[in-house]
Amino acid sequence: MIPQGILNKMDGSRQRYVDELLSFLRIPSVSTYSQNGSDVRRAAEWVLNQLKRLGFQAKLYPTEGHPIVFGERCDMPDRPTLLIYGHYDVQPPEPLEEWRTPPFQPIIQDGYVYGRGATDDKGQFFTYLKAIEAILAVESKLPINVKILVEGEEEISSPHLAPFLSSHQTDLKADAVAISDGSQFMQGIPAITYSLRGLSYLQMEVNGPQFDLHSGVFGGVVTNPVQALATILGKLLHPDGRIAIPGFYDDIVPLEAWERDEMAGLRFDEEGLKSYLGVQDLAGETGYTPLERKTARPTLDVNGIWGGFSGEGAKTIIPAKAGAKVSMRLVPNQNFRKINGLFREYVESITPAGVTLKIKELHGADPVLVSRDEVHVQAAAKAIEKGFGRAPVFIREGGSIPIVNLLKEVLGIESILLLGWGSPDDGAHSPNERFLLDDFHRGIRSVAALLYELSPS
Amino acid sequence: MIPQGILNKMDGSRQRYVDELLSFLRIPSVSTYSQNGSDVRRAAEWVLNQLKRLGFQAKLYPTEGHPIVFGERCDMPDRPTLLIYGHYDVQPPEPLEEWRTPPFQPIIQDGYVYGRGATDDKGQFFTYLKAIEAILAVESKLPINVKILVEGEEEISSPHLAPFLSSHQTDLKADAVAISDGSQFMQGIPAITYSLRGLSYLQMEVNGPQFDLHSGVFGGVVTNPVQALATILGKLLHPDGRIAIPGFYDDIVPLEAWERDEMAGLRFDEEGLKSYLGVQDLAGETGYTPLERKTARPTLDVNGIWGGFSGEGAKTIIPAKAGAKVSMRLVPNQNFRKINGLFREYVESITPAGVTLKIKELHGADPVLVSRDEVHVQAAAKAIEKGFGRAPVFIREGGSIPIVNLLKEVLGIESILLLGWGSPDDGAHSPNERFLLDDFHRGIRSVAALLYELSPS
Repeated sequence: MIPQGILNKMDGSRQRYVDELLSFLRIPSVSTYSQNGSDVRRAAEWVLNQLKRLGFQAKLYPTEGHPIVFGERCDMPDRPTLLIYGHYDVQPPEPLEEWRTPPFQPIIQDGYVYGRGATDDKGQFFTYLKAIEAILAVESKLPINVKILVEGEEEISSPHLAPFLSSHQTDLKADAVAISDGSQFMQGIPAITYSLRGLSYLQMEVNGPQFDLHSGVFGGVVTNPVQALATILGKLLHPDGRIAIPGFYDDIVPLEAWERDEMAGLRFDEEGLKSYLGVQDLAGETGYTPLERKTARPTLDVNGIWGGFSGEGAKTIIPAKAGAKVSMRLVPNQNFRKINGLFREYVESITPAGVTLKIKELHGADPVLVSRDEVHVQAAAKAIEKGFGRAPVFIREGGSIPIVNLLKEVLGIESILLLGWGSPDDGAHSPNERFLLDDFHRGIRSVAALLYELSPS
Repeated sequence: MIPQGILNKMDGSRQRYVDELLSFLRIPSVSTYSQNGSDVRRAAEWVLNQLKRLGFQAKLYPTEGHPIVFGERCDMPDRPTLLIYGHYDVQPPEPLEEWRTPPFQPIIQDGYVYGRGATDDKGQFFTYLKAIEAILAVESKLPINVKILVEGEEEISSPHLAPFLSSHQTDLKADAVAISDGSQFMQGIPAITYSLRGLSYLQMEVNGPQFDLHSGVFGGVVTNPVQALATILGKLLHPDGRIAIPGFYDDIVPLEAWERDEMAGLRFDEEGLKSYLGVQDLAGETGYTPLERKTARPTLDVNGIWGGFSGEGAKTIIPAKAGAKVSMRLVPNQNFRKINGLFREYVESITPAGVTLKIKELHGADPVLVSRDEVHVQAAAKAIEKGFGRAPVFIREGGSIPIVNLLKEVLGIESILLLGWGSPDDGAHSPNERFLLDDFHRGIRSVAALLYELSPS
């Protein structure tokens, strides 16, 4: 139970918290731009300085890219340890002309803070630092052990995180990980994400004749590689939207009635989605609602295709080759390596004669499912209810978060708490990114509550 | 019957004919290169000068591109008129490093003349001029009326020929057209091409969501445009290679048994073709031989496809749109406008829900069939037998020759004599283009014989 003094402390410090956040947001730590290198480093040092002021044993760990900040404060050897993950880098601000105010001159307007990084992830991550600060100001020690890992390359796919995790497994040992780099279900409806879809991403290349042929002279004697590829792709989905690969659905944990009821209760805005996407009708696997299809059912998409002549006008060739990128979103308990194998087997079996097929596996991630009955998840739910004034809903996310798979696989931590304080319309990665200040403060309160909920005392 | 004196004249002039051809080949009349503009004009004037020396009423007709040379010598008002078509421009010589001798310094080696334009089309066209010269030298007039049309833009798709034909319909009136811009069936087996395939060339565009979507967040709620396009393309052909468009085969004149026997007798080199194409097996419509399939049966090919991400690595998007170019080779008596309509109707009927489809017609040409019983064709067959010492075989070509359609449609001439003196391995459009001098002289003899065969006397 969070002591009242801490709540009072946090209430009294709201303006200072916001002022500090603004100074964090002013650092243009765009990780993808080499000319921003010193800014990115400045952001890392800014975070390091915060950790040191909180009494953390912390330092910068150089990588071949941007440094990783890691610190810990383990006051309670017998109590649980929470690892907090965040990132101090931000997306590029472009297109600049669409910002109503400069992206790195954050301002407060209508209760929101506007600026690049407001929600993704500086603002959300910063809630952890301020909650810890408030606890320490009142209690002088934390109710559990806390480790904080902050990287500067999340927006460029975390190229140096895996080796760091591997070589610091003992340092990073923890009972649960908390990440606030997403959002609530919608503004005012806080959520815990308990499932992520996995990913199988493959590239196919179909080769026919050894060079492009004149379609008049040779049309009729060779298999056309684009045609062959299209035939294969056309056979990956049944007309009802189900994936046609034999065995594809075998390992899936079916959605139970209670979970489908719960998702139906979320009153997902289909009309709003259609108008956002600019489509007349939503589409997909029959027998499931759009929300189920986009978060809890597997999908298969062609991400790109190429072959032959794509310029203006007519060129009468039979292309020598064609290629496509195909990816599948997987759900618990599918395994991406097994799915890759099934994909390969099926596609090879339906490849037309006269061409050769090459399949390359580009990327894979297993789906994630965290038990909602799990003690840390239950603690997080109680904490959010305290912070936001209403119990969170439990949601699945349709995307994959590679960091989550890394943390699970390299560190072996199963309790992944995905706690979004932001809102889906905050504009992460878009112009005019923002974060509702009330959500910022609710997030701080939720973090403080979480540390007490995780404490066995 | 060709007078013996003319044959003697031609035999005695062989070396001079070759010397003159070499001077024609030395002019680098590459129509596609603007820096060769004055060379192209020089070639036109070289041809004009030849025509004038033969007593033709001839002149250069300027166009917005390269000039057209047209001349006529109508000595016999009551006799038939033959229109001869040729082109004085040539393909670019690149890649230069693959030429064993400079492309515009023609040389004689092993009985061949090597140089750009040797066969396509300077060497073949020049046979007409030398045959006429020999006849005039002995007889002082031609046995029929002759018109000669020589353009300088064949290698760049004859952009200014159609308007010229339209505005000179009376001048160009003729009973038959002779074109020697192809080849024999193979070296030593002279041929008359009596059929060309037609062409329907279309572009398809499939549109889905209004922008590229994240495949994790939105996978499962929209129809993927690439997937939709692949599904359509996959349904254009049956597994047996037949085209699936309803009504597609309705108007086709079936191959008769005698024609199939004749084609079988040509002993087409399948093994050589496979090794040239670099494929294990030939493919195509079941029930027909490769030679039938590539010349006498219709085909459908995807010429190009595009959509989404084709760069290196993985990008997890659902593309907003996709497109493809699709062309069909048509055979007598298919009509490209009708086929375009059937294509559109069928494709629209199989387009998956959730996307919109746009079809653009890029290019069309009707197939060509010249009756082999036709009097001019029979005359050409006899002439070739005299020139080459063996009767020609009758062949179909798989490609379309837009000029032939133009001549038929604008001038209304049905007798199109496609008489190739060259060989399929002469390397037209390739490095080390060549023309066998024996074929050059056989061609000259054939032309002289043709003029007498066409004469009713």
